[in-house]
Amino acid sequence: MSPKNCMVAQSGGPTVAINASLAGVIDGVMRSDMYDTVYGSLNGITGILNNDLTNLSELMQQNSEYLDRLKVTPAMYLGSCRYKLPNYLDDDSSYVFIFKQFETYHIDAFFYIGGNDSMDTVLKLSEYGKKIGSPVRIVGIPKTIDNDLCETDHTPGFGSAAKYIASSLLEIAHDTFIYAVKSVTIVEIMGRDAGWLTAASALARNGYNTAPHLIYLPEVPFDKEDFLLDVKRMLFERNNVIVAVSEGIRDASGNYISASESSVDTFGHSQLSGAGKTLEFLVKEKLGVKVRSVEVNVLQRCAAHLASKTDLDEAFTLGQKAVALSEEGVTASMVTIRRISDSPYEIAYEHAEIRHIANEAKSIPREWINDAGNDVTQPLIDYLSPLILGEVPVKYENGIPVYMDVSHLAKHQ
Amino acid sequence: MSPKNCMVAQSGGPTVAINASLAGVIDGVMRSDMYDTVYGSLNGITGILNNDLTNLSELMQQNSEYLDRLKVTPAMYLGSCRYKLPNYLDDDSSYVFIFKQFETYHIDAFFYIGGNDSMDTVLKLSEYGKKIGSPVRIVGIPKTIDNDLCETDHTPGFGSAAKYIASSLLEIAHDTFIYAVKSVTIVEIMGRDAGWLTAASALARNGYNTAPHLIYLPEVPFDKEDFLLDVKRMLFERNNVIVAVSEGIRDASGNYISASESSVDTFGHSQLSGAGKTLEFLVKEKLGVKVRSVEVNVLQRCAAHLASKTDLDEAFTLGQKAVALSEEGVTASMVTIRRISDSPYEIAYEHAEIRHIANEAKSIPREWINDAGNDVTQPLIDYLSPLILGEVPVKYENGIPVYMDVSHLAKHQ
Repeated sequence: MSPKNCMVAQSGGPTVAINASLAGVIDGVMRSDMYDTVYGSLNGITGILNNDLTNLSELMQQNSEYLDRLKVTPAMYLGSCRYKLPNYLDDDSSYVFIFKQFETYHIDAFFYIGGNDSMDTVLKLSEYGKKIGSPVRIVGIPKTIDNDLCETDHTPGFGSAAKYIASSLLEIAHDTFIYAVKSVTIVEIMGRDAGWLTAASALARNGYNTAPHLIYLPEVPFDKEDFLLDVKRMLFERNNVIVAVSEGIRDASGNYISASESSVDTFGHSQLSGAGKTLEFLVKEKLGVKVRSVEVNVLQRCAAHLASKTDLDEAFTLGQKAVALSEEGVTASMVTIRRISDSPYEIAYEHAEIRHIANEAKSIPREWINDAGNDVTQPLIDYLSPLILGEVPVKYENGIPVYMDVSHLAKHQ
Repeated sequence: MSPKNCMVAQSGGPTVAINASLAGVIDGVMRSDMYDTVYGSLNGITGILNNDLTNLSELMQQNSEYLDRLKVTPAMYLGSCRYKLPNYLDDDSSYVFIFKQFETYHIDAFFYIGGNDSMDTVLKLSEYGKKIGSPVRIVGIPKTIDNDLCETDHTPGFGSAAKYIASSLLEIAHDTFIYAVKSVTIVEIMGRDAGWLTAASALARNGYNTAPHLIYLPEVPFDKEDFLLDVKRMLFERNNVIVAVSEGIRDASGNYISASESSVDTFGHSQLSGAGKTLEFLVKEKLGVKVRSVEVNVLQRCAAHLASKTDLDEAFTLGQKAVALSEEGVTASMVTIRRISDSPYEIAYEHAEIRHIANEAKSIPREWINDAGNDVTQPLIDYLSPLILGEVPVKYENGIPVYMDVSHLAKHQ
């Protein structure tokens, strides 16, 4: 009897949890009675097209510490891609080759860990597979710091990014409060269309820290005059005003509040930068007060040294769950999280049809944002709070974190 | 007999270790047979002028966890200031008032924790005190992420910032290596006149990570043509080139490589931003390759969740040492660290006359930078390596770090 193998790939932008899901898939296959080997496709779906595959089962046998180390390693161990599959009705050549590869490697199930665009790939592969009567199960595993996937309560990677944002905002508050002079600090946070991550800055508020004092999200049209009035009012109450702002804020006409020129990526998204800088200039010009902007950099999506334990544990379990579902014959689906209660925090792992997820995006409900559109409300805090709980012990060597060796990603360079 | 008390203040820019030195001073006074109470002056020397003082001995009696919590709290618990004392020959009114306050509070020793500008204050108070025959001992305790103070092997705050830079650079490398396309990532790191912190990015190199591939420091004149050739050569060897660059790089004429206009702070320093952005535009224009710049933000000086244990322990010990020296009658001095050996790492705590330190700055020796001026040499690595060793357990509550309540800094707001 020929072996039954699995294949897994990662795609889209980095998160801290995407390798935890990979570790969950590997662990699921290792524990499976049905599956033999799990192969990794390097750089997303393009690894299958370029025959750039790696034997992950073998890798794990080399060192018993690798699975735990993989779980805490940031970004993608297998690399990523931004490749968009063509519609197979227009051009099915890549589909033909991908499913031929599945046959060659005796692949019974393919797992794709990614965000919105990656779920588009899952949908297309599922539809083509159904059309040709392929037995290969195709299951998506969600990840995105943006938390904007439908049908799942939240996405792996978001909780860790939210923990990083909340902790960093608190540390920036300590950095800001030291001077007894009026000042405005504008913190720009990632999130093109949804404000989930910017909203998480509210979790920095504790017994003594009231920052951020204002929060602006893409879900509410941004008005410069209202913003200046908000800041003026806050400056009347206190010396140091800290503002959290999403990179994706737009005016009532839908134009981004951004100083820089915009370009468009392969998926048609505008590339943004500069909302924070734009508001910094605005405050300087109109209010004449000391002002700085802080663009929280790529570390918000890759600072694995500050991951949420809740997040990594869920990401790992979703990887295991995807394997278990494929064993039951589930395909054309994505594993999901359903929330049962906020407090005590309780969830269930489920799955949903991929056609309800791909190319859809989930925004923050308007009622979870205050009427003035400059802060969040309690239900949003209640939703966010459990996701950042728990810390993950990272090993250090020579003073820096120990992650998985990713030199294989440079092998063709 | 009247009590013998101490006073302590903090000044300059934030670091992760400046409260560890404050904790060391408090601990030193609490253990002292000579001293009774330690007062904190809020917002540097201006707290004495405004009679804005707090009883730190009382604070520590409120909760036995406070000393440990203070040790890991970022920025200044007592707040900071950028106030520059006038020359007392021109205007001695503030000096008269400060020494009157010392009498009122029975102050026997004054400790000032800060960087270069703060040591200027220590020098001036020492000189004035000597002139009027005051018995008050004035002792400086160094701190600066810039590591540019003379007479001490290194400065508290630097090791933690260096650990943050090295760890972050490694995480940015993981974030960068995922795409199999040519790209340049420019990471801009703090350091106006000295490149110590930018040099610490080299500690991110481990068994598999060779980034940063190029390092540019203020100690070597920056040449745009040489830079473009360096990047082109590196792009030939690998896909993803990561460049670490100091905010303070200058051309051969001494002009900052910066896109933004410069302004001048109260100490006459140019305010910088934009070296990374400038080089990003340059690479985009001249090489036409995918490029991004990452300005490592204020977290490099306040991310206490990733402090170096070596750094915080040394900062604490220097605080204790300052108290012990003052008991011996030492004044007009700064506590210092002398390195005995790199490996095993061994140091001695000493002190030096403040007149040799104030208004001087320590750059990286030219021989610790390679001939091409685009990387560091082994002696610099050997010097830096021990400073980032060890991690500090920070407590978390509700998913964010537990630091000292600093709401008193807002009390006048």
